[in-house]
Amino acid sequence: MDKNPGPGMGDTSKSAAMFRVFFSSKINVLITKSSVEFYEYVERSLGWDLGMRYLGYLFLVDSEEFERLKPALDAAEKLGGSYSIVEREELKRQGFKVDVSRDEEARAMGIPDIEAGIYVPRAGTLDPDSLVRFYEVSFKSLGGEAIYNTYVKRIVLGPKKPLDIPGEPFAWQDIEAKGVETDSGYIEARNIVVAAGAWTRRLLEPIGIDPIVNPKKRQIFVIRANTDELSALLHTKGYNDLGVIPFTILPRRVYIKPEVRERSFWVGLSDDLGRPYALEEDPKPEESFYRYSIYPVLSKYLPQFTGASPNTMWAGHYDMNPIDGQPVIFKVGNIMVAAGTSGSGIMKADSIGRIASAVALEIDEAELFGGIRIRTEVFGLNRKDIERERIIL
Amino acid sequence: MDKNPGPGMGDTSKSAAMFRVFFSSKINVLITKSSVEFYEYVERSLGWDLGMRYLGYLFLVDSEEFERLKPALDAAEKLGGSYSIVEREELKRQGFKVDVSRDEEARAMGIPDIEAGIYVPRAGTLDPDSLVRFYEVSFKSLGGEAIYNTYVKRIVLGPKKPLDIPGEPFAWQDIEAKGVETDSGYIEARNIVVAAGAWTRRLLEPIGIDPIVNPKKRQIFVIRANTDELSALLHTKGYNDLGVIPFTILPRRVYIKPEVRERSFWVGLSDDLGRPYALEEDPKPEESFYRYSIYPVLSKYLPQFTGASPNTMWAGHYDMNPIDGQPVIFKVGNIMVAAGTSGSGIMKADSIGRIASAVALEIDEAELFGGIRIRTEVFGLNRKDIERERIIL
Repeated sequence: MDKNPGPGMGDTSKSAAMFRVFFSSKINVLITKSSVEFYEYVERSLGWDLGMRYLGYLFLVDSEEFERLKPALDAAEKLGGSYSIVEREELKRQGFKVDVSRDEEARAMGIPDIEAGIYVPRAGTLDPDSLVRFYEVSFKSLGGEAIYNTYVKRIVLGPKKPLDIPGEPFAWQDIEAKGVETDSGYIEARNIVVAAGAWTRRLLEPIGIDPIVNPKKRQIFVIRANTDELSALLHTKGYNDLGVIPFTILPRRVYIKPEVRERSFWVGLSDDLGRPYALEEDPKPEESFYRYSIYPVLSKYLPQFTGASPNTMWAGHYDMNPIDGQPVIFKVGNIMVAAGTSGSGIMKADSIGRIASAVALEIDEAELFGGIRIRTEVFGLNRKDIERERIIL
Repeated sequence: MDKNPGPGMGDTSKSAAMFRVFFSSKINVLITKSSVEFYEYVERSLGWDLGMRYLGYLFLVDSEEFERLKPALDAAEKLGGSYSIVEREELKRQGFKVDVSRDEEARAMGIPDIEAGIYVPRAGTLDPDSLVRFYEVSFKSLGGEAIYNTYVKRIVLGPKKPLDIPGEPFAWQDIEAKGVETDSGYIEARNIVVAAGAWTRRLLEPIGIDPIVNPKKRQIFVIRANTDELSALLHTKGYNDLGVIPFTILPRRVYIKPEVRERSFWVGLSDDLGRPYALEEDPKPEESFYRYSIYPVLSKYLPQFTGASPNTMWAGHYDMNPIDGQPVIFKVGNIMVAAGTSGSGIMKADSIGRIASAVALEIDEAELFGGIRIRTEVFGLNRKDIERERIIL
């Protein structure tokens, strides 16, 4: 059931839809690698075009961050990841301004010189709409039914063993979900799976479940490559088979993504402190965010963008797990929750689905695509280092 | 700074104010034992009456829960806790109806027979108002100043290095807290300590910090012991030096607390699924909650309460940590947070204060009263089993 007219038309459709298989933690490598390999299998063996394009990721780092990252890069390499260092001279030739501190304004802003680029080839983008359609077709071929244009207002609880007393359920009863109230009436349910992304907290808090996850607004601004300089930047050679600039992350986390067919760049920034945790039913992009928080950084490192302003923009949410950025997958009675993709939902989606189905079936280990097994409790609510108290009042 | 006219007049004043030093997890024993020993020191050595009364805790359990609890009771004993088992016959003599299943209505309700009582002597209650006044006096004697009747509307952020550009802070700046906006104007601050209990989430979400903790309404109903049967129950002998019934937890978690001076029982129930996570600025008790969720259970196990209804009642919140029920103590830049007491705030308060002050001073280990040292990261946001990702985009 989805409030939108089709699958994945909420925040999924607004995503930059990037993936990478390059992480310092084993868990991230496992769940992204397996998902990406499944997507490759879908394209190559099932012949379903997911629009996968290996753009690569290019992280541009200052000297401090470079030092800080080195042990993590080693760890990523030990886990099978590959990367190469791009020298400053090479970056300069490609049009990056690495020595911004020569600029008085940049100095006042406190933005740092670029020490190096870290290029990760096993990374790219895909078409999220095509991916969700693939899953929808698979779901329907298994007999699944999807209801669209239907807004779930609330999950309705009731007693496991009803006594038909008005006011049920009471606190002394065993309580479970009975159905959902929607804008087209009540729908009964034996089990409920909440895979509602940013809407998860809004659905669960009222029935007394805190899902940990919390939405934060994210925005994408589209800049047309309508000058020779921007066009040249878009078609930067030497990184990938596509002959385009990689997905590039500047210092201060401003990113640009090439969209060659649209002759555009998608530009964004995942801001943290100061950006509220909040759900907006229909989130609106803020042009001022581009102008004052993105543009000053973007135009210093890439003067090709000087004067450029977005001709399209939109906003969605990350459904954040504020503790560790990992998905949160758990079951409370007959209510199953998969949430908290934290901005890496697409690159982990296939694994999340397999883990969620194991949790739904109460199987302790999920089998990911490729055969790797993973304990589902790693993604549960109680994945804690701290000793669990067993005497609870 | 507090919206109330004095310290601890929010949820602290509405608490049942119970303490115990009987847990299966080492961390709970450490932080409650140290706190309770400090309170004893305050009473005995400093001569400040905290109103400590060792009522004891009496858990009444069915056979299933009794079996489930046995390993936890062993663990608690190994950690220095003591308890005794109260036999069914003894409970019957004291006026408990242990065989409720003989009653048709109780059978329909599905409430279980009591198999045993577990009595914990090192537990009781204290006067929360006296406790917070003690801390306030200590705080003021160190030169602290308290501002009351002042409602903090929001925490104001700004750039660490202001450029005096309208619209600051921007996402590329280093951001910190600059002060708070209150209903009596703006107050500048070098550091901010958020120890706002149920209000923590409301203060932090808007500035982009998710504190994990989330409030849930809790209610207390006062029943006068105005019959011979209730008076006899109140003065049940054999448990404590006070000659009163212990703080007693019935199956389905309905509890009663004796208030001898008031010739009353305080009755409550910490409901879970179905009770929303939500903050109410001025929470109201629901008499229907007593009538339909508490009374049916209470009057089955203790028929002395038949026909009894509350003459006073109030509501507050637990500030829940939905993950593990432990306090959450952390620092983001110059914003320090201590929250998530989850219904055991008073019994842990002294330890929480010492841990919070270590976190504020960026000391890795806190020293609790009595000299025990504890790593502060145990209470941080990132207390996770899961491996931390170090390559974060």
